[in-house]
Amino acid sequence: MSKHYSGRFITFEGGEGAGKSTNIQFCADWLSARGQEVLLTREPGGTPIAELIRSRLLKANHSESMDPLAELLLMFAARAQHVNRVIRPALQSGCWVLCDRFTDSTIAYQGFGRGLDLEQIATLKNMTHGDLAPDRTFLLDTPVEVGMARARGRGAALGEETDRFEREQLAFFERVREGFQALAATNPHFVTIDATQSLDLVQSRLQSELERLLAS
Amino acid sequence: MSKHYSGRFITFEGGEGAGKSTNIQFCADWLSARGQEVLLTREPGGTPIAELIRSRLLKANHSESMDPLAELLLMFAARAQHVNRVIRPALQSGCWVLCDRFTDSTIAYQGFGRGLDLEQIATLKNMTHGDLAPDRTFLLDTPVEVGMARARGRGAALGEETDRFEREQLAFFERVREGFQALAATNPHFVTIDATQSLDLVQSRLQSELERLLAS
Repeated sequence: MSKHYSGRFITFEGGEGAGKSTNIQFCADWLSARGQEVLLTREPGGTPIAELIRSRLLKANHSESMDPLAELLLMFAARAQHVNRVIRPALQSGCWVLCDRFTDSTIAYQGFGRGLDLEQIATLKNMTHGDLAPDRTFLLDTPVEVGMARARGRGAALGEETDRFEREQLAFFERVREGFQALAATNPHFVTIDATQSLDLVQSRLQSELERLLAS
Repeated sequence: MSKHYSGRFITFEGGEGAGKSTNIQFCADWLSARGQEVLLTREPGGTPIAELIRSRLLKANHSESMDPLAELLLMFAARAQHVNRVIRPALQSGCWVLCDRFTDSTIAYQGFGRGLDLEQIATLKNMTHGDLAPDRTFLLDTPVEVGMARARGRGAALGEETDRFEREQLAFFERVREGFQALAATNPHFVTIDATQSLDLVQSRLQSELERLLAS
Protein backbone atom coordinates (compact mmCIF):
# COMPACT_ATOMS: atom_id res chain seq x y z
CA MET A 1 0.00 0.00 0.00
CA SER A 2 1.27 3.48 -0.81
CA LYS A 3 0.64 4.75 2.71
CA HIS A 4 3.69 7.00 2.71
CA TYR A 5 2.44 8.96 -0.31
CA SER A 6 -0.07 11.80 -0.13
CA GLY A 7 -1.61 10.94 -3.54
CA ARG A 8 -3.76 7.92 -4.41
CA PHE A 9 -2.87 5.17 -6.85
CA ILE A 10 -5.79 3.65 -8.75
CA THR A 11 -5.46 1.00 -11.43
CA PHE A 12 -8.00 -0.21 -13.99
CA GLU A 13 -7.96 -3.81 -15.12
CA GLY A 14 -10.05 -6.02 -17.36
CA GLY A 15 -10.14 -7.73 -20.73
CA GLU A 16 -10.53 -6.14 -24.13
CA GLY A 17 -13.81 -4.33 -24.78
CA ALA A 18 -14.62 -3.85 -21.08
CA GLY A 19 -14.74 -0.06 -21.40
CA LYS A 20 -11.53 0.79 -19.54
CA SER A 21 -10.66 3.91 -21.56
CA THR A 22 -14.11 5.49 -21.25
CA ASN A 23 -14.29 4.83 -17.54
CA ILE A 24 -10.76 5.98 -16.67
CA GLN A 25 -11.51 9.25 -18.45
CA PHE A 26 -14.77 9.50 -16.47
CA CYS A 27 -12.85 9.07 -13.19
CA ALA A 28 -10.16 11.59 -14.23
CA ASP A 29 -12.81 14.18 -15.13
CA TRP A 30 -14.78 13.53 -11.94
CA LEU A 31 -11.69 13.97 -9.75
CA SER A 32 -10.45 17.04 -11.66
CA ALA A 33 -13.87 18.68 -11.25
CA ARG A 34 -13.41 18.25 -7.48
CA GLY A 35 -10.08 20.10 -7.55
CA GLN A 36 -7.81 17.06 -7.47
CA GLU A 37 -4.55 16.85 -9.42
CA VAL A 38 -4.88 13.82 -11.69
CA LEU A 39 -2.32 11.95 -13.74
CA LEU A 40 -3.79 9.60 -16.32
CA THR A 41 -1.25 7.05 -17.50
CA ARG A 42 -0.99 3.53 -18.90
CA GLU A 43 1.05 0.34 -19.00
CA PRO A 44 3.11 -0.81 -20.64
CA GLY A 45 4.29 2.77 -21.20
CA GLY A 46 3.76 6.05 -19.41
CA THR A 47 7.29 7.50 -19.92
CA PRO A 48 9.33 8.08 -23.12
CA ILE A 49 11.59 5.08 -22.41
CA ALA A 50 8.69 2.81 -21.38
CA GLU A 51 6.67 3.85 -24.45
CA LEU A 52 9.73 2.99 -26.58
CA ILE A 53 9.82 -0.47 -24.96
CA ARG A 54 6.11 -0.79 -25.76
CA SER A 55 6.21 0.38 -29.38
CA ARG A 56 9.60 -0.91 -30.53
CA LEU A 57 9.68 -4.19 -28.62
CA LEU A 58 6.44 -5.40 -27.05
CA LYS A 59 4.00 -4.33 -29.81
CA ALA A 60 6.37 -4.57 -32.78
CA ASN A 61 6.74 -7.32 -35.34
CA HIS A 62 10.15 -8.95 -35.17
CA SER A 63 12.09 -11.20 -37.50
CA GLU A 64 12.45 -13.72 -34.65
CA SER A 65 9.98 -14.92 -32.03
CA MET A 66 10.15 -13.16 -28.67
CA ASP A 67 11.24 -15.41 -25.82
CA PRO A 68 8.49 -15.36 -23.12
CA LEU A 69 10.95 -14.54 -20.31
CA ALA A 70 12.50 -11.75 -22.41
CA GLU A 71 9.01 -10.32 -22.88
CA LEU A 72 8.29 -10.53 -19.15
CA LEU A 73 11.58 -8.78 -18.31
CA LEU A 74 10.83 -6.06 -20.87
CA MET A 75 7.41 -5.57 -19.28
CA PHE A 76 9.02 -5.09 -15.86
CA ALA A 77 11.79 -2.87 -17.29
CA ALA A 78 9.08 -0.55 -18.64
CA ARG A 79 7.31 -0.78 -15.28
CA ALA A 80 10.44 0.06 -13.26
CA GLN A 81 10.95 3.16 -15.40
CA HIS A 82 7.27 4.13 -15.07
CA VAL A 83 7.05 3.50 -11.33
CA ASN A 84 10.31 5.24 -10.41
CA ARG A 85 10.25 8.15 -12.84
CA VAL A 86 6.50 8.93 -13.06
CA ILE A 87 4.19 7.17 -10.60
CA ARG A 88 6.17 7.62 -7.35
CA PRO A 89 7.00 11.32 -7.99
CA ALA A 90 3.34 12.01 -8.86
CA LEU A 91 2.08 10.25 -5.72
CA GLN A 92 4.67 12.12 -3.64
CA SER A 93 3.40 15.44 -4.97
CA GLY A 94 -0.16 14.53 -3.96
CA CYS A 95 -1.48 13.54 -7.38
CA TRP A 96 -4.14 10.93 -8.01
CA VAL A 97 -2.52 8.48 -10.43
CA LEU A 98 -5.02 6.62 -12.63
CA CYS A 99 -3.27 3.83 -14.51
CA ASP A 100 -4.71 1.81 -17.41
CA ARG A 101 -3.41 -1.67 -16.51
CA PHE A 102 -0.63 -2.50 -14.04
CA THR A 103 1.06 -5.61 -12.64
CA ASP A 104 -2.25 -7.46 -12.25
CA SER A 105 -2.50 -7.48 -16.06
CA THR A 106 0.92 -9.14 -16.22
CA ILE A 107 -0.26 -11.78 -13.75
CA ALA A 108 -3.53 -12.34 -15.65
CA TYR A 109 -2.18 -12.28 -19.24
CA GLN A 110 1.35 -13.69 -18.92
CA GLY A 111 0.73 -15.85 -15.85
CA PHE A 112 -2.82 -17.22 -16.13
CA GLY A 113 -3.19 -16.66 -19.91
CA ARG A 114 0.15 -17.93 -21.18
CA GLY A 115 1.20 -20.10 -18.29
CA LEU A 116 4.37 -18.27 -17.23
CA ASP A 117 5.59 -19.12 -13.76
CA LEU A 118 3.55 -17.07 -11.26
CA GLU A 119 6.39 -17.16 -8.73
CA GLN A 120 8.75 -15.65 -11.30
CA ILE A 121 6.24 -12.85 -11.88
CA ALA A 122 5.88 -12.37 -8.11
CA THR A 123 9.69 -12.12 -7.76
CA LEU A 124 9.86 -9.41 -10.44
CA LYS A 125 6.87 -7.59 -8.93
CA ASN A 126 8.54 -7.57 -5.54
CA MET A 127 11.85 -6.39 -7.04
CA THR A 128 10.18 -3.59 -9.02
CA HIS A 129 7.56 -2.25 -6.60
CA GLY A 130 7.49 -4.42 -3.50
CA ASP A 131 6.57 -1.36 -1.44
CA LEU A 132 3.94 0.09 -3.78
CA ALA A 133 0.49 -1.39 -4.41
CA PRO A 134 -2.61 0.30 -5.80
CA ASP A 135 -4.94 1.89 -3.23
CA ARG A 136 -7.83 0.68 -5.35
CA THR A 137 -8.07 -1.54 -8.44
CA PHE A 138 -11.23 -1.41 -10.53
CA LEU A 139 -11.75 -4.66 -12.39
CA LEU A 140 -14.16 -4.07 -15.26
CA ASP A 141 -15.44 -7.57 -15.79
CA THR A 142 -17.28 -8.89 -18.86
CA PRO A 143 -17.90 -12.39 -20.18
CA VAL A 144 -15.20 -13.05 -22.77
CA GLU A 145 -17.63 -13.32 -25.72
CA VAL A 146 -19.12 -9.90 -24.91
CA GLY A 147 -15.71 -8.22 -24.65
CA MET A 148 -14.41 -9.88 -27.83
CA ALA A 149 -17.55 -8.85 -29.76
CA ARG A 150 -17.16 -5.24 -28.53
CA ALA A 151 -13.44 -5.19 -29.39
CA ARG A 152 -14.24 -6.66 -32.82
CA GLY A 153 -16.90 -4.02 -33.28
CA ARG A 154 -14.37 -1.22 -32.91
CA GLY A 155 -12.09 -2.77 -35.50
CA ALA A 156 -9.80 -5.03 -33.53
CA ALA A 157 -8.09 -7.51 -35.81
CA LEU A 158 -10.31 -10.47 -35.09
CA GLY A 159 -12.61 -10.42 -38.15
CA GLU A 160 -10.18 -12.19 -40.45
CA GLU A 161 -9.12 -14.88 -38.06
CA THR A 162 -9.95 -18.50 -38.64
CA ASP A 163 -12.42 -20.29 -36.38
CA ARG A 164 -9.66 -22.31 -34.80
CA PHE A 165 -7.59 -19.26 -33.92
CA GLU A 166 -10.69 -17.58 -32.52
CA ARG A 167 -11.46 -20.60 -30.34
CA GLU A 168 -7.87 -20.51 -29.04
CA GLN A 169 -8.27 -16.81 -28.34
CA LEU A 170 -11.51 -17.47 -26.48
CA ALA A 171 -9.81 -20.08 -24.31
CA PHE A 172 -6.88 -17.71 -23.69
CA PHE A 173 -9.16 -14.83 -22.67
CA GLU A 174 -11.15 -17.17 -20.41
CA ARG A 175 -7.93 -17.98 -18.55
CA VAL A 176 -7.09 -14.26 -18.34
CA ARG A 177 -10.55 -13.53 -16.91
CA GLU A 178 -10.17 -16.33 -14.37
CA GLY A 179 -6.80 -14.80 -13.43
CA PHE A 180 -8.37 -11.40 -12.77
CA GLN A 181 -11.18 -13.01 -10.78
CA ALA A 182 -8.67 -14.98 -8.70
CA LEU A 183 -6.74 -11.75 -7.98
CA ALA A 184 -9.96 -9.94 -7.05
CA ALA A 185 -10.96 -12.76 -4.70
CA THR A 186 -7.69 -12.58 -2.77
CA ASN A 187 -6.84 -8.84 -2.79
CA PRO A 188 -9.15 -6.60 -0.76
CA HIS A 189 -8.20 -3.46 -2.73
CA PHE A 190 -9.96 -4.91 -5.80
CA VAL A 191 -13.45 -3.69 -6.69
CA THR A 192 -15.09 -5.83 -9.36
CA ILE A 193 -17.64 -4.03 -11.51
CA ASP A 194 -19.95 -5.85 -13.90
CA ALA A 195 -19.15 -4.04 -17.15
CA THR A 196 -22.14 -5.52 -19.00
CA GLN A 197 -24.34 -3.09 -17.04
CA SER A 198 -25.31 0.26 -18.58
CA LEU A 199 -22.57 2.88 -18.55
CA ASP A 200 -24.66 4.92 -16.09
CA LEU A 201 -24.69 2.09 -13.58
CA VAL A 202 -20.95 1.41 -14.03
CA GLN A 203 -20.14 5.07 -13.53
CA SER A 204 -22.38 5.59 -10.52
CA ARG A 205 -20.53 2.68 -8.91
CA LEU A 206 -17.15 4.23 -9.80
CA GLN A 207 -18.36 7.58 -8.45
CA SER A 208 -19.41 6.15 -5.11
CA GLU A 209 -16.04 4.38 -4.77
CA LEU A 210 -14.18 7.62 -5.58
CA GLU A 211 -16.31 9.48 -3.02
CA ARG A 212 -15.29 6.98 -0.35
CA LEU A 213 -11.63 7.30 -1.34
CA LEU A 214 -11.82 11.12 -1.31
CA ALA A 215 -13.41 11.10 2.14
CA SER A 216 -10.98 8.58 3.63
CA MET B 1 27.71 -25.70 -16.18
CA SER B 2 26.45 -26.59 -19.62
CA LYS B 3 27.10 -30.31 -19.13
CA HIS B 4 24.06 -31.38 -21.08
CA TYR B 5 25.23 -29.59 -24.22
CA SER B 6 27.69 -31.00 -26.73
CA GLY B 7 29.15 -27.55 -27.56
CA ARG B 8 31.34 -25.38 -25.34
CA PHE B 9 30.43 -21.98 -23.99
CA ILE B 10 33.33 -19.54 -23.58
CA THR B 11 32.98 -15.95 -22.44
CA PHE B 12 35.46 -13.08 -22.58
CA GLU B 13 35.46 -10.42 -19.91
CA GLY B 14 37.52 -7.39 -19.01
CA GLY B 15 37.52 -3.62 -19.04
CA GLU B 16 37.82 -1.30 -22.03
CA GLY B 17 41.07 -1.52 -24.00
CA ALA B 18 41.96 -5.02 -22.77
CA GLY B 19 41.99 -6.44 -26.29
CA LYS B 20 38.85 -8.55 -26.10
CA SER B 21 37.86 -8.16 -29.77
CA THR B 22 41.29 -9.11 -31.13
CA ASN B 23 41.57 -12.13 -28.86
CA ILE B 24 38.05 -13.47 -29.41
CA GLN B 25 38.71 -13.36 -33.13
CA PHE B 26 42.01 -15.19 -32.56
CA CYS B 27 40.20 -17.95 -30.63
CA ALA B 28 37.44 -18.21 -33.26
CA ASP B 29 40.01 -18.55 -36.05
CA TRP B 30 42.09 -21.06 -34.08
CA LEU B 31 39.04 -23.27 -33.37
CA SER B 32 37.68 -22.99 -36.94
CA ALA B 33 41.08 -24.03 -38.30
CA ARG B 34 40.71 -27.19 -36.19
CA GLY B 35 37.37 -28.02 -37.77
CA GLN B 36 35.14 -26.74 -34.96
CA GLU B 37 31.84 -24.98 -35.60
CA VAL B 38 32.17 -21.57 -33.94
CA LEU B 39 29.58 -18.94 -33.14
CA LEU B 40 31.05 -15.55 -32.27
CA THR B 41 28.51 -13.37 -30.48
CA ARG B 42 28.29 -10.52 -27.97
CA GLU B 43 26.30 -9.02 -25.14
CA PRO B 44 24.22 -7.04 -24.81
CA GLY B 45 22.95 -8.19 -28.22
CA GLY B 46 23.47 -11.28 -30.33
CA THR B 47 19.93 -11.54 -31.76
CA PRO B 48 17.81 -9.00 -33.68
CA ILE B 49 15.61 -8.30 -30.63
CA ALA B 50 18.56 -8.14 -28.22
CA GLU B 51 20.49 -5.84 -30.61
CA LEU B 52 17.39 -3.60 -30.72
CA ILE B 53 17.41 -3.47 -26.91
CA ARG B 54 21.09 -2.53 -27.08
CA SER B 55 20.88 0.15 -29.77
CA ARG B 56 17.50 1.73 -29.06
CA LEU B 57 17.51 1.50 -25.27
CA LEU B 58 20.81 0.71 -23.57
CA LYS B 59 23.15 2.72 -25.83
CA ALA B 60 20.71 5.43 -26.92
CA ASN B 61 20.32 8.96 -25.61
CA HIS B 62 16.93 9.50 -24.02
CA SER B 63 14.98 12.57 -23.03
CA GLU B 64 14.73 11.16 -19.49
CA SER B 65 17.26 9.42 -17.29
CA MET B 66 17.18 5.63 -17.31
CA ASP B 67 16.19 4.10 -13.98
CA PRO B 68 19.00 1.72 -12.87
CA LEU B 69 16.60 -1.19 -12.25
CA ALA B 70 14.95 -0.62 -15.66
CA GLU B 71 18.42 -0.79 -17.23
CA LEU B 72 19.23 -4.00 -15.36
CA LEU B 73 15.94 -5.62 -16.44
CA LEU B 74 16.59 -4.57 -20.06
CA MET B 75 20.02 -6.15 -19.85
CA PHE B 76 18.50 -9.44 -18.68
CA ALA B 77 15.65 -9.23 -21.24
CA ALA B 78 18.29 -9.04 -23.98
CA ARG B 79 20.16 -11.89 -22.28
CA ALA B 80 17.06 -14.13 -22.03
CA GLN B 81 16.45 -13.65 -25.75
CA HIS B 82 20.12 -14.32 -26.56
CA VAL B 83 20.43 -17.38 -24.31
CA ASN B 84 17.16 -19.03 -25.34
CA ARG B 85 17.13 -18.20 -29.04
CA VAL B 86 20.85 -18.30 -29.93
CA ILE B 87 23.24 -19.66 -27.30
CA ARG B 88 21.34 -22.78 -26.17
CA PRO B 89 20.43 -23.91 -29.73
CA ALA B 90 24.06 -23.40 -30.83
CA LEU B 91 25.42 -25.38 -27.86
CA GLN B 92 22.86 -28.12 -28.49
CA SER B 93 24.05 -28.43 -32.09
CA GLY B 94 27.65 -28.85 -30.92
CA CYS B 95 28.89 -25.34 -31.64
CA TRP B 96 31.58 -23.54 -29.66
CA VAL B 97 29.93 -20.30 -28.56
CA LEU B 98 32.41 -17.46 -27.97
CA CYS B 99 30.66 -14.54 -26.30
CA ASP B 100 32.06 -11.02 -25.87
CA ARG B 101 30.84 -10.23 -22.32
CA PHE B 102 28.15 -12.10 -20.39
CA THR B 103 26.53 -11.95 -16.94
CA ASP B 104 29.89 -11.40 -15.21
CA SER B 105 30.03 -7.99 -16.93
CA THR B 106 26.63 -7.14 -15.45
CA ILE B 107 27.92 -8.13 -12.01
CA ALA B 108 31.16 -6.12 -12.45
CA TYR B 109 29.71 -2.98 -14.11
CA GLN B 110 26.20 -2.67 -12.62
CA GLY B 111 26.95 -4.40 -9.33
CA PHE B 112 30.49 -3.48 -8.34
CA GLY B 113 30.76 -0.36 -10.54
CA ARG B 114 27.41 1.32 -9.92
CA GLY B 115 26.48 -0.29 -6.65
CA LEU B 116 23.31 -2.12 -7.72
CA ASP B 117 22.17 -4.84 -5.34
CA LEU B 118 24.25 -7.98 -6.07
CA GLU B 119 21.47 -10.22 -4.76
CA GLN B 120 19.02 -8.67 -7.22
CA ILE B 121 21.48 -9.40 -10.04
CA ALA B 122 21.92 -12.96 -8.74
CA THR B 123 18.12 -13.46 -8.70
CA LEU B 124 17.86 -12.31 -12.33
CA LYS B 125 20.84 -14.43 -13.35
CA ASN B 126 19.24 -17.48 -11.77
CA MET B 127 15.89 -16.73 -13.43
CA THR B 128 17.46 -16.23 -16.86
CA HIS B 129 20.12 -18.95 -17.01
CA GLY B 130 20.28 -20.73 -13.66
CA ASP B 131 21.22 -23.95 -15.47
CA LEU B 132 23.77 -22.47 -17.90
CA ALA B 133 27.23 -21.19 -16.96
CA PRO B 134 30.28 -20.69 -19.18
CA ASP B 135 32.64 -23.67 -19.48
CA ARG B 136 35.51 -21.17 -19.43
CA THR B 137 35.70 -17.40 -18.87
CA PHE B 138 38.81 -15.57 -20.03
CA LEU B 139 39.34 -12.42 -17.99
CA LEU B 140 41.66 -10.10 -19.89
CA ASP B 141 42.98 -8.00 -17.07
CA THR B 142 44.75 -4.65 -17.36
CA PRO B 143 45.39 -1.87 -14.85
CA VAL B 144 42.65 0.71 -15.37
CA GLU B 145 44.99 3.49 -16.55
CA VAL B 146 46.45 1.23 -19.26
CA GLY B 147 43.04 0.16 -20.52
CA MET B 148 41.68 3.70 -20.50
CA ALA B 149 44.72 5.01 -22.37
CA ARG B 150 44.34 2.26 -25.00
CA ALA B 151 40.60 2.93 -25.35
CA ARG B 152 41.31 6.67 -25.63
CA GLY B 153 43.94 5.93 -28.27
CA ARG B 154 41.38 4.28 -30.51
CA GLY B 155 39.05 7.25 -30.25
CA ALA B 156 36.83 6.49 -27.28
CA ALA B 157 35.11 9.61 -26.06
CA LEU B 158 37.43 10.35 -23.17
CA GLY B 159 39.60 13.08 -24.68
CA GLU B 160 37.13 15.89 -24.17
CA GLU B 161 36.18 15.02 -20.63
CA THR B 162 37.06 17.24 -17.73
CA ASP B 163 39.62 16.11 -15.17
CA ARG B 164 36.93 15.59 -12.55
CA PHE B 165 34.86 13.37 -14.79
CA GLU B 166 37.96 11.39 -15.73
CA ARG B 167 38.82 10.87 -12.06
CA GLU B 168 35.27 9.60 -11.46
CA GLN B 169 35.65 7.28 -14.43
CA LEU B 170 38.95 5.97 -13.08
CA ALA B 171 37.33 5.21 -9.71
CA PHE B 172 34.39 3.53 -11.46
CA PHE B 173 36.64 1.33 -13.61
CA GLU B 174 38.72 0.45 -10.54
CA ARG B 175 35.55 -0.89 -8.89
CA VAL B 176 34.68 -2.79 -12.08
CA ARG B 177 38.16 -4.35 -12.17
CA GLU B 178 37.87 -5.33 -8.49
CA GLY B 179 34.52 -6.92 -9.35
CA PHE B 180 36.04 -9.04 -12.10
CA GLN B 181 38.92 -10.03 -9.84
CA ALA B 182 36.51 -11.03 -7.08
CA LEU B 183 34.56 -13.16 -9.56
CA ALA B 184 37.76 -14.78 -10.83
CA ALA B 185 38.85 -15.57 -7.28
CA THR B 186 35.62 -17.41 -6.48
CA ASN B 187 34.73 -19.11 -9.79
CA PRO B 188 37.04 -21.92 -10.91
CA HIS B 189 35.99 -21.61 -14.57
CA PHE B 190 37.71 -18.20 -14.72
CA VAL B 191 41.15 -17.90 -16.31
CA THR B 192 42.76 -14.53 -15.66
CA ILE B 193 45.23 -13.39 -18.32
CA ASP B 194 47.52 -10.40 -17.86
CA ALA B 195 46.62 -8.35 -20.93
CA THR B 196 49.56 -5.99 -20.53
CA GLN B 197 51.77 -8.79 -21.88
CA SER B 198 52.64 -8.93 -25.58
CA LEU B 199 49.85 -10.19 -27.83
CA ASP B 200 51.98 -13.28 -28.58
CA LEU B 201 52.13 -14.22 -24.92
CA VAL B 202 48.39 -13.58 -24.41
CA GLN B 203 47.52 -15.70 -27.42
CA SER B 204 49.83 -18.58 -26.58
CA ARG B 205 48.09 -18.71 -23.19
CA LEU B 206 44.66 -18.68 -24.89
CA GLN B 207 45.83 -21.41 -27.28
CA SER B 208 47.00 -23.71 -24.51
CA GLU B 209 43.67 -23.25 -22.70
CA LEU B 210 41.75 -24.03 -25.89
CA GLU B 211 43.90 -27.12 -26.45
CA ARG B 212 42.99 -28.37 -22.97
CA LEU B 213 39.29 -27.71 -23.62
CA LEU B 214 39.43 -29.46 -27.00
CA ALA B 215 41.09 -32.50 -25.44
CA SER B 216 38.74 -32.74 -22.46
